Amino acid sequence: MSSMDCATFPMHPKMDEQLARTFVINEEEEEKHIQKVQNAFLYYGPYACQRLKRSMDYLNSLSGEDQIMLAKYRGHLECVRTCIDRNQAVIREILRGRVLYPTDEATGDPSEFDEPPPNVRHGDMDQIDIPFDEADVEPLKILKAQSTLKLIARDWSTEGALEREQSYKPIIDSIVAYFKHSDFELKDIKILVPGAGLGRLTYELACLGYSCEGNEFSYFMLIASNFVLNLCDNENKYVLYPWVHQYVNNLRREDQVAPVRFPDVCPLKNPPKGHFEIAAGDFLEVYKTPNAYNCVATCFFIDCANNVIDFIRTIYKILVPGGIWVNLGPLLYHFSDVSGQNSIEPAFEDLCIIMESVGFVIEKSRTGIRTKYAQNPSSMKQSEYQSLFWVCRKPDLFEEQRGKRKASREPHDLIVREDSEEEGEQQPERNETEEKQQLKPLATANCETEIKEQPS
Amino acid sequence: MSSMDCATFPMHPKMDEQLARTFVINEEEEEKHIQKVQNAFLYYGPYACQRLKRSMDYLNSLSGEDQIMLAKYRGHLECVRTCIDRNQAVIREILRGRVLYPTDEATGDPSEFDEPPPNVRHGDMDQIDIPFDEADVEPLKILKAQSTLKLIARDWSTEGALEREQSYKPIIDSIVAYFKHSDFELKDIKILVPGAGLGRLTYELACLGYSCEGNEFSYFMLIASNFVLNLCDNENKYVLYPWVHQYVNNLRREDQVAPVRFPDVCPLKNPPKGHFEIAAGDFLEVYKTPNAYNCVATCFFIDCANNVIDFIRTIYKILVPGGIWVNLGPLLYHFSDVSGQNSIEPAFEDLCIIMESVGFVIEKSRTGIRTKYAQNPSSMKQSEYQSLFWVCRKPDLFEEQRGKRKASREPHDLIVREDSEEEGEQQPERNETEEKQQLKPLATANCETEIKEQPS
Repeated sequence: MSSMDCATFPMHPKMDEQLARTFVINEEEEEKHIQKVQNAFLYYGPYACQRLKRSMDYLNSLSGEDQIMLAKYRGHLECVRTCIDRNQAVIREILRGRVLYPTDEATGDPSEFDEPPPNVRHGDMDQIDIPFDEADVEPLKILKAQSTLKLIARDWSTEGALEREQSYKPIIDSIVAYFKHSDFELKDIKILVPGAGLGRLTYELACLGYSCEGNEFSYFMLIASNFVLNLCDNENKYVLYPWVHQYVNNLRREDQVAPVRFPDVCPLKNPPKGHFEIAAGDFLEVYKTPNAYNCVATCFFIDCANNVIDFIRTIYKILVPGGIWVNLGPLLYHFSDVSGQNSIEPAFEDLCIIMESVGFVIEKSRTGIRTKYAQNPSSMKQSEYQSLFWVCRKPDLFEEQRGKRKASREPHDLIVREDSEEEGEQQPERNETEEKQQLKPLATANCETEIKEQPS
Repeated sequence: MSSMDCATFPMHPKMDEQLARTFVINEEEEEKHIQKVQNAFLYYGPYACQRLKRSMDYLNSLSGEDQIMLAKYRGHLECVRTCIDRNQAVIREILRGRVLYPTDEATGDPSEFDEPPPNVRHGDMDQIDIPFDEADVEPLKILKAQSTLKLIARDWSTEGALEREQSYKPIIDSIVAYFKHSDFELKDIKILVPGAGLGRLTYELACLGYSCEGNEFSYFMLIASNFVLNLCDNENKYVLYPWVHQYVNNLRREDQVAPVRFPDVCPLKNPPKGHFEIAAGDFLEVYKTPNAYNCVATCFFIDCANNVIDFIRTIYKILVPGGIWVNLGPLLYHFSDVSGQNSIEPAFEDLCIIMESVGFVIEKSRTGIRTKYAQNPSSMKQSEYQSLFWVCRKPDLFEEQRGKRKASREPHDLIVREDSEEEGEQQPERNETEEKQQLKPLATANCETEIKEQPS
């Protein structure tokens, strides 16, 4: 998608098909890519059943005595199969939305997706034998289809409410505090959300009256968000089983097959007050116009760059003077240790240097914001990020000279945990159960001071 | 190691070399395997530097402006290199212990390990170009060498104290409460610790006076534990940098290069009161003698089976009537989704059925025991297991008939979280900050009741 400079198209309240058809310049390559994503969605079920079959085969090979003890487990594996089938049925619904995408097949009969993929007979698990190597589908992409189900649960189900509160509320609160209803005509405040994913943060900001644009690169996300935003016509109409692929760390059999309804809110029936659109394409390719947005909001996004400086510089460029960048997330660095990909992985203290060097004023920065990301709440394994949160301002030099804006309140390399801040500061909601972890003072980053102990 | 029926050999206070030499029946295959593990340890450094070089190469390809902003990051990468070198130096020390293993090379000059592996010139990172494909070393095994460093920190450093308290204390407390000093001659109480790893739990139990045997399959663990148990002659003599391979989710550069000293306790200077030995080999192959142990203690072990029933049945068999099995850990199921490996993944409620079917009486069972496992405490990503904990008894039918032992106190499928238990019960130490998570009542495991919601 490297050539999609003109890739924005509205996705809400309804798709402008004519505009959508113009957004692909290298149409052939793009179609091929979309087809691969569609194939991954279509092979989701057969792939999942193939894995299930391996467990069932091994179970059948065990002694009669063992199999008696595992009778309920065997019944459970049948339930897992049912859940996979139901997930696949929802995925077929989601793919009906693909007529919005400019592929040749899009003009075909959507009912073709009610048929199983070639070489797969549904209803007889033992007969499944899909030649994945022959099909144009990559196992890694199928895992992304599985992830997409979890991300639908995160963004658009009641079960995802806690995760959304952890991740989106600090961002929304900061924007509301900065661009107050009393000071601004909210529809004139243009907010860009790069890495919009399933679109919930962008939608929530638009509901408050801001003029919002989400940007997303992944067609897994784009296809699924298009379905939720433009095609779901009722609250909680659909059921997914997002944890059905987690065979391990289950207390109860039912934990693996727990249902999640979506969407908890129906955007079609609750259109946002402010302007709302989703733009497809690579953030660095699409956004080149300077001084275009009053606010950029990034959530679990900035670590998706090969070189994070490129993201920071682009955000600075597209902000109007006086505009703000609000960020929340960890530094997972998506491309770290990915074969064939370049990656640098600066620490948070490096990012502070970079942000100030690029020109940002760091208005606020916090560490240790507890945020879960697409976690199965019943799992025996629980992971969470101690996320970073910051608000940066692109200085308005004219206003700075007139003394309207105060300078940065915090030195760039000061690391303050959320719970060590003085009271009275505006800040994300505090979690009282949060562990109080004492941080050591910073040391200069040269080898002599950093590596304090020598091996004997 | 499938044929090592006679695989026990003492490793403390000193190695019986004659006995060690007898423990391998299929010597050639075994030597080949040990050599691969040794190679992985030796290629640890070059492999780590190769990955580091990719970051450095990309950094060098960036614009001058970017490189200025990343000056401290560049210095940090040099520190990372130093830490890798120091880790490799400690690994070479650890491998000196390999003379205890029955390989031909073991009689050679240990100083050969002070030399870099072939094709690698230390001191010039840009020149590193190791043909891993030609060397007899697998990248997956090198990752295990990296993990070994973290596990040394978990078992034998001050920094690992919290994790050991979470994982080992509940087990130790239960054993002490069951086999009281006042009721038993502790040296007559034989305890087996399958999956002994780096040996700390086994050592702690032996220090209390019990007669202890650890069992371990992995030569990564065996080589490292032999070093700590038999060759370290002073507390905190060595320094490792266990988190140096974690390039992501660092707040500060120094977090990645944090030093950890080991061993916090020197077993050579503090020999345990009770008998202590480590036995190499596959648990299912080595332990076939019935009624041999008063207690089996498993920690993060039972999910390492292809078929967990085999482990449970073996534990039952080797326990004396009236003996107990104490277990703590999650159900990660090591072989789940591992290519070419069989695996079933019963939930906890399935395990309860299996344990009772095999003959165990479940004396106590808890869920939600918060346990971290080899976690970098400074990382922005924090994971923990809500572990299971149970004490099972192999009934002594004669005593049962005489009414000396009461029957099971809890029905097999009752799931009680640690924090929902009544006070006054003997239990692992409670963590007051633990989240209070309400568990739903159990449902019967058939499809009709488990999958409650139908897709629309």
